[in-house]
Amino acid sequence: MSDTQGPSGPEPEPGPPSSAGPAGLSGDMDYRQGAVDLLGVLAYGALTAFERLAEDARMAPSLADKVYVATMAAHQIEHFARVRDRLAELNADVMVAMEPFHAPFDAFHEYTAPKDWYESLLKAYVGDGFAADFYREVAAFVDPDTRALVHEVLADEGHGEFVVEQVRSAIAEDPAKAGRLALWGRRLVGEALTQAQRVAANRDALTSLLTGTVDRPGMDLAAISRMFSRLIENHTKRMAKLGLQA
Amino acid sequence: MSDTQGPSGPEPEPGPPSSAGPAGLSGDMDYRQGAVDLLGVLAYGALTAFERLAEDARMAPSLADKVYVATMAAHQIEHFARVRDRLAELNADVMVAMEPFHAPFDAFHEYTAPKDWYESLLKAYVGDGFAADFYREVAAFVDPDTRALVHEVLADEGHGEFVVEQVRSAIAEDPAKAGRLALWGRRLVGEALTQAQRVAANRDALTSLLTGTVDRPGMDLAAISRMFSRLIENHTKRMAKLGLQA
Repeated sequence: MSDTQGPSGPEPEPGPPSSAGPAGLSGDMDYRQGAVDLLGVLAYGALTAFERLAEDARMAPSLADKVYVATMAAHQIEHFARVRDRLAELNADVMVAMEPFHAPFDAFHEYTAPKDWYESLLKAYVGDGFAADFYREVAAFVDPDTRALVHEVLADEGHGEFVVEQVRSAIAEDPAKAGRLALWGRRLVGEALTQAQRVAANRDALTSLLTGTVDRPGMDLAAISRMFSRLIENHTKRMAKLGLQA
Repeated sequence: MSDTQGPSGPEPEPGPPSSAGPAGLSGDMDYRQGAVDLLGVLAYGALTAFERLAEDARMAPSLADKVYVATMAAHQIEHFARVRDRLAELNADVMVAMEPFHAPFDAFHEYTAPKDWYESLLKAYVGDGFAADFYREVAAFVDPDTRALVHEVLADEGHGEFVVEQVRSAIAEDPAKAGRLALWGRRLVGEALTQAQRVAANRDALTSLLTGTVDRPGMDLAAISRMFSRLIENHTKRMAKLGLQA
């Protein structure tokens, strides 16, 4: 299975120098906490994605669509289980690791409750795609085993084509949908960034994975700005694939 | 993985003589349709179980409970996928195979919507246990490959202990719950039997798996009565395990 999902854009910035590699996991508490935080985000993200997709399955316009979305939901639980197992290897409890992220995820889902099937599809594709890109960027800064797991879990989301096909044919049938769905896509990214900022402000360990610490270099401001450009560029490509303006 | 789930009771009656065995699958159209019907029931049963468990996960009193029930839900989708693949081997489409069972399953779930977490747990344990016992009885009369798949899929339901523990401790805390839940258990089985009769009346191929045809012996009335005794006996054991009167 490849780790490209939809447009994947250029490779993320290289990680920290190898002196701060896997060995750092036990040595640098902040660094370990950063990895645990990233996995905690992924675990809670998978769990809430399961709930959302299960809810979407109820709204599915056909039984075949229901099966498809229910299968996507079930995959989220497999992802959750793999992340939980990795956390256990790092001597961290998944329930504890997820806790700091309840509030931002719950708020995100509360503010972005889809009103119909197409809003659901867009949320699964555009919202999750944006989040996955961001997690991959952060994963460049954790130990290789955790990084490999993150990439594997995120690669298994291949629902792109299903969504693209459905959204494009819906727009072809009713062109007015395009404007409304384009707005929805912007709103999803806006809410995601709002909640990400909230996380960044509260979780120093996670933030310092990206920015580095005195002992361990991270991204400088120019690199962070390039990262955001990559995220937005990939988002724009996904929207274009759907026939929507970002 | 063993195929015993909770009290499993005596082995089902032996299947038809081997002359009507796997070869019958291609030769006897009624027989093949019976196997396809059984798999169709299992597939639609798994899909509706997914939906119900996903809904239960929303009601879960703790995040750990939610994870547990969401994992049960995800397993149902794995079961669905395996049954769908077996149907494809028999040149049958899962969507078509499920169709005759939409109405009885949807009616069953409509009439037995759980009002709280404990009713949900009981439904998953007692209702699914009863259904699984019945499917195993019918599976004695299909080809060995289909039978093996049915047993494997039904074996993977090991949520017995989780439910038993939660229900028993809830009753210990509030003994009044026992009476209400005992009633609920009886109602679940009553509704299940009502819908099963509806299926039996409409699906000759499925019914004739049990009763046999001119060319292929099945159960006589005495054997069918013994089968019902086994089903009720196992149900009573499950209720007793929960500390409830059947």
